[in-house]
Amino acid sequence: MTGQVTIVGLGPGDPRWLTPAASEVLASATDLIGYGPYVGRVPERPGQRRHGSDNRVELDRARLALDLAAKGGQVAVVSGGDPGVFAMAAAVFEALENGDPSWRDIDIRVEPGITAMLAAAAHVGAPLGGDFCAISLSDNLKPWEVVERRLKAAVTADFVVALYNPISAARPWQLGAAFKVVAEIRGPDTPIIFARAVGRPDQRIRIVPLSEVEASMADMSTVVIIGASTTRLIEKADGDTPYVYTPRFYGVRP
Amino acid sequence: MTGQVTIVGLGPGDPRWLTPAASEVLASATDLIGYGPYVGRVPERPGQRRHGSDNRVELDRARLALDLAAKGGQVAVVSGGDPGVFAMAAAVFEALENGDPSWRDIDIRVEPGITAMLAAAAHVGAPLGGDFCAISLSDNLKPWEVVERRLKAAVTADFVVALYNPISAARPWQLGAAFKVVAEIRGPDTPIIFARAVGRPDQRIRIVPLSEVEASMADMSTVVIIGASTTRLIEKADGDTPYVYTPRFYGVRP
Repeated sequence: MTGQVTIVGLGPGDPRWLTPAASEVLASATDLIGYGPYVGRVPERPGQRRHGSDNRVELDRARLALDLAAKGGQVAVVSGGDPGVFAMAAAVFEALENGDPSWRDIDIRVEPGITAMLAAAAHVGAPLGGDFCAISLSDNLKPWEVVERRLKAAVTADFVVALYNPISAARPWQLGAAFKVVAEIRGPDTPIIFARAVGRPDQRIRIVPLSEVEASMADMSTVVIIGASTTRLIEKADGDTPYVYTPRFYGVRP
Repeated sequence: MTGQVTIVGLGPGDPRWLTPAASEVLASATDLIGYGPYVGRVPERPGQRRHGSDNRVELDRARLALDLAAKGGQVAVVSGGDPGVFAMAAAVFEALENGDPSWRDIDIRVEPGITAMLAAAAHVGAPLGGDFCAISLSDNLKPWEVVERRLKAAVTADFVVALYNPISAARPWQLGAAFKVVAEIRGPDTPIIFARAVGRPDQRIRIVPLSEVEASMADMSTVVIIGASTTRLIEKADGDTPYVYTPRFYGVRP
């Protein structure tokens, strides 16, 4: 009997952000597949097989999931955040499209989760309150020219922009290049949010004006949010980190 | 003693998508504030006051929340989906910025939720697998020229685009105008997803090629996802609605 693959979003890390629907899938899976640290977030269960792997073998993981399901497994592929946003869901469908025709019989589902930019935005206020874009800065899978063209288009049209995968040891210069593109278009006071590991013990949040950003303020676990021209700060009475929000209206308040 | 305001995301409607963190806030609130149908989703609790209201009075709701918290209330403002995405969080910060200076002492938090485009994407596959934008088609709060300029920029740069608030009785022509903009740039086979009330009993999902779309396929409860040039369908063995996904790579597969 053919089994099932569900690609499950674990949210950004705080277990209180894991949805009950995702918990149900994790509880009934025969096999858990994913990047090691994500598999490590799921409590162990007797009889459930765990297949943790390195970060760079997404297609291999996807094929393993489909193969196990073809043999009758109830397979959960785990992703941080939402599996449809720069994560495992697209990898599974890519493997399906180019893989064994018998895999087309497998029931494939996606269980959504809180993606990093939503948790980051919630933590500082409402910076995504207007129209916004999400761009992965990784050029492993697309040419840098495409990233740059999209970033320029988004900033020129005055979207708020969330940057995923901003920097890594293998991609050290892309975030700096991205800030350069932004600085040619947006003002120096534009709020930039660096939100690292939101909801986890090693969380770190900074809000910095564009004129003072440095690529070293981000790491692999950071999502960077670039404000629109209308994004603004509200100082708190106690002088703590200000709120950041983007008003829903644009131009003159009607 | 000054109280607290938390703007809480209820997710798209299925209670299994309500996070435990959001449930906790709802359970401990003294006052619930929100658009009537959202307040109606929260189970009643003895001693908890409920302030349901019409859809169009967001700033009034925000001020009421801040006023009750200033008097010591533990106030939960409820939003469908994620409160930071075209919802109540920005309204609360706008009211704060322009309101009573004593409100700056209030502890204001945002509790994220699954926003509609994530649930819609999960339901059909992984259409947001590449870079994407979210645009509200409502021109109540911004000029239509801004909407059109952003949409054109996003489609030209080959983002996937999610359209929120696509149509209503008061805004009957905007979605048709948006499809016209898209059709000048994207091919006729571009998959368009109409995802209505995902996770609720009245859910309805359609996938239609751009050449066959009609604005009447959407209503107020629909999120519309416009594929990028790389977004594609995978037919299922049983002939059921195909999967839709956007590959992570762009151009030639490395």
